[in-house]
Amino acid sequence: MPEHAHIVTSFEDELRSLDNRIAEMGGLAERLVDQSFEALDKRDTRLAELAIASDLAIDRHEREVESQAIAMIGRRQPMALDLRHITTAIKVAGDLERVGDLAKNIAKRALAVANEPRPKQLMGGIGHMTEIAQRQLKDVLDAYAMRDAEKAEAVWRNDGLIDALYNSLFRELLTYMMEDPRNIGLCTHLLFAAKNLERIGDHATNIAETTYFLVTGAQLAEDRPKGDTTSSTAITDRTSS
Amino acid sequence: MPEHAHIVTSFEDELRSLDNRIAEMGGLAERLVDQSFEALDKRDTRLAELAIASDLAIDRHEREVESQAIAMIGRRQPMALDLRHITTAIKVAGDLERVGDLAKNIAKRALAVANEPRPKQLMGGIGHMTEIAQRQLKDVLDAYAMRDAEKAEAVWRNDGLIDALYNSLFRELLTYMMEDPRNIGLCTHLLFAAKNLERIGDHATNIAETTYFLVTGAQLAEDRPKGDTTSSTAITDRTSS
Repeated sequence: MPEHAHIVTSFEDELRSLDNRIAEMGGLAERLVDQSFEALDKRDTRLAELAIASDLAIDRHEREVESQAIAMIGRRQPMALDLRHITTAIKVAGDLERVGDLAKNIAKRALAVANEPRPKQLMGGIGHMTEIAQRQLKDVLDAYAMRDAEKAEAVWRNDGLIDALYNSLFRELLTYMMEDPRNIGLCTHLLFAAKNLERIGDHATNIAETTYFLVTGAQLAEDRPKGDTTSSTAITDRTSS
Repeated sequence: MPEHAHIVTSFEDELRSLDNRIAEMGGLAERLVDQSFEALDKRDTRLAELAIASDLAIDRHEREVESQAIAMIGRRQPMALDLRHITTAIKVAGDLERVGDLAKNIAKRALAVANEPRPKQLMGGIGHMTEIAQRQLKDVLDAYAMRDAEKAEAVWRNDGLIDALYNSLFRELLTYMMEDPRNIGLCTHLLFAAKNLERIGDHATNIAETTYFLVTGAQLAEDRPKGDTTSSTAITDRTSS
């Protein structure tokens, strides 16, 4: 009996260690998103280099979550609920790894636009998207850590906000390019940066869905609330103006 | 003994059924990439709608691979090698699901540019990227099905080709926008379409890495050959021209 109790505790320790690693990855991803925007906004190439390098740590964590999880499955032969816990950790780590990649890509663009002008309104728009993406990321990591299905659902519902900001920024960037072709290079990079933030929001939404499923055993919905309509935005009326 | 032999065979059947589903998903993803480009190239909105709708089938397959895989782990308690096989299937299905998403996004852009002009050279460039992305996808799915580590490695090495095409197309699109601001809307959509194809290539590379690991138990490398340099391409010399 004490033997069995010992095994149970140790398995819980392992699960906790998996979650701790996810929390650490999440913290790194949040900071990377922050640094990338700072680098882009301040044209700070040193910070951009730092952000790019720190993505490696996130990648390493992901590989370790994966091998730890697979080793646990092999060694412990867990039953349904514990198995769901472990596979959830793998999924969340995968989403955080992608968040890191997307943020790193923003930092790379910070290097590319280092000598470009700094259009205040556009940068403000991207700053706003960054804030919301970070809040979503923070909230969903809290929801995961606390196994809070309601909070996860709130994050899921809020994804429309980032999408709406992206849609309006997309239009602003296009207008800005049309006004002066010298803006095209800069705006192309800002367009991709904004798209990356929108996708970071999507990954927060993925984590929200995964967390909700972990806690409740039910899917949030087949189709998420999808608000990025720019890919189907016709631009004829605009180009003729 | 016959009892045990029966169980072993049946487990192999389940593994095969998992692989069959991956092969089916792969076929759907290949076709979706093809249809999306056709729709974009021919300005065929009906085909675009068809492509968008067919992504749902890929998503459904992914969910089924996942639940089948987790059920197998729970029921069969597989040991190291079989476990690696099952987790590989989950990963490959995840990559194919993202390929479907990216192709669907190209189809959405086909709707957006339906009434735009059709710059022959640019569309030729995107067509070329599509061909290479499809070949990579086909080759890596063959490598996975045949457990061919050498073929997987070849796909992995070839990723640079798509990246090089993307880099040159990126520059062409920027030039085209600068020449005439009326091209900006169209070119922005083509820019994202090209980026999506480049990312489809990345997912083929992911599958190559996963397949290589499944067959050999070794990682191909920590850092893949990375050839998309556009995110760090400064554009000042260009905007001043």
